[in-house]
Amino acid sequence: MPYPSRVKLVDVGPRDGLQNEKQTVPAAVKIELVHRLQAAGLREIEVTSFVSPKWVPQMGDNAEVMAGIERQPGVRYSVLTPNLRGFESALASRPDEIVVFGAASEAFSQRNINCSIAESIERFAPVVEAARAAGIYVRGAMSCTVGCPYEGEIAPERVAYLAGLMKGIGVQHVGVADTIGVGTPLKVQRALEATLAHFALDDVSGHFHDTYGQALANTLASLEMGVWQYDTSVAGLGGCPYAKGATGNVATEDVVYMLHGMGIDTGIDLDALIDAGQYISDFLGRPTQSRVAKALLAKREASVCDAV
Amino acid sequence: MPYPSRVKLVDVGPRDGLQNEKQTVPAAVKIELVHRLQAAGLREIEVTSFVSPKWVPQMGDNAEVMAGIERQPGVRYSVLTPNLRGFESALASRPDEIVVFGAASEAFSQRNINCSIAESIERFAPVVEAARAAGIYVRGAMSCTVGCPYEGEIAPERVAYLAGLMKGIGVQHVGVADTIGVGTPLKVQRALEATLAHFALDDVSGHFHDTYGQALANTLASLEMGVWQYDTSVAGLGGCPYAKGATGNVATEDVVYMLHGMGIDTGIDLDALIDAGQYISDFLGRPTQSRVAKALLAKREASVCDAV
Repeated sequence: MPYPSRVKLVDVGPRDGLQNEKQTVPAAVKIELVHRLQAAGLREIEVTSFVSPKWVPQMGDNAEVMAGIERQPGVRYSVLTPNLRGFESALASRPDEIVVFGAASEAFSQRNINCSIAESIERFAPVVEAARAAGIYVRGAMSCTVGCPYEGEIAPERVAYLAGLMKGIGVQHVGVADTIGVGTPLKVQRALEATLAHFALDDVSGHFHDTYGQALANTLASLEMGVWQYDTSVAGLGGCPYAKGATGNVATEDVVYMLHGMGIDTGIDLDALIDAGQYISDFLGRPTQSRVAKALLAKREASVCDAV
Repeated sequence: MPYPSRVKLVDVGPRDGLQNEKQTVPAAVKIELVHRLQAAGLREIEVTSFVSPKWVPQMGDNAEVMAGIERQPGVRYSVLTPNLRGFESALASRPDEIVVFGAASEAFSQRNINCSIAESIERFAPVVEAARAAGIYVRGAMSCTVGCPYEGEIAPERVAYLAGLMKGIGVQHVGVADTIGVGTPLKVQRALEATLAHFALDDVSGHFHDTYGQALANTLASLEMGVWQYDTSVAGLGGCPYAKGATGNVATEDVVYMLHGMGIDTGIDLDALIDAGQYISDFLGRPTQSRVAKALLAKREASVCDAV
């Protein structure tokens, strides 16, 4: 199969990236980050989560952030909704898309959301129904599709099982996530194949973590299967709070660099994207996790020195 | 083409990795590093360079290091020889292999070794002849095969030109190096294809830098062409001194992790390799550049805490 000529990236930085950040990020900073991402050419942004502020205080300003965004035509704004109550709160914010989630690992499901995989799907069924009735697109995030911090390797059959359950309740698109970043190219391809038993190619995306440095290789392996949609996080913000050492959403910048280098269109301006990443990294007071941003920023500084 | 079932990694850490290190690394530490690498299963190690200590003081202990290694049967020990004088000094150390080098970029050749590509090949011709007469295998390192810090992108024709010159003087094997790490999968494949016009698949290896985080994706792209030999550097030691921001040989650990995850045999024990990387990183007083080592070491520490 030839590589896709165009790839769509969903930047999950404002939500997935910031949700476990210890220091409070003001709504104004989140809004500015979203504005910079859309100005850089991102056409879908995972903005926030409508979850209880008791559990995720960082997302307590969800409605404020959604209200503060100057929406740009052609850009989709998605939010995570963990249950019907969250969905109902989200409705007033008019998201284009909601995200529900489940794990391919029973142990992870139990430890993460205190219920079995099947129970989690039962809980989400009315959310999906309500969203679709309201004309809101439903994406499902499938975590631990390659490995689990508690169970180790996850068989593709478990991924197919979860994908089938998601399809069954009306989820329209699923993301195949390597939550702890342990995946390598062939294992990721097997997880995607298992998913494609239930979802069409156009309804499947990849969500890879760079914990073990494998995310770009896994992206390349997925491109070879024709997968053309990926979740990424500007500056490599975020990770998974429940998995030891599982920092590291792959940086949007690094994926864009690879894709552009392969002649694959993303619609994204890499320089503007790097500036967006620098904006949030400066706010957080730590260096970007993007290797491309690090290398190109070092080059920019060097040019400035040369010019002086 | 199916992926190779076995891959050979050449660890270039002791030479390429350490050569630009500012603090002096004592011969005993270099020797211990080589011992740990071979104990971890490496079957070829680039040990040192027989270059003038005026230019590369770090390699001034070349003969001492070579003499101090307890050689293991089946392991090959290679050394860099920049000219006939260096080769003659190296002879007494009985290397299994010497490395000569050239750039695919004229500007890089001029700035790096003060001569044109053609002149550099003329200089190396007698070295290659002498080595082969002495029964020593000759590897050629081809730098800047994808991009150059002075010229920008390098056309595959320039790579073919250099490969042809190397073949012409009797070089037996060439490494296709992305010296500044700017390569992406399709560009790397084009550089390899250009090389394969002059060398057989078994006589070509990949040498990728991770400056832009692309090295594993580029390795995957090369594996797809059947390339089964790669230069890597334990703990991601080293980079290129002449290229701005060009730190980042790909870490051996990260490549091994990907290969093993794909069911490809390397003969390397990842845990022992991580310990070897930790040994040299501790000596240098800085964290490993390997993402796999970072992730697995964090996991080990976590397990220790759990147990307490």
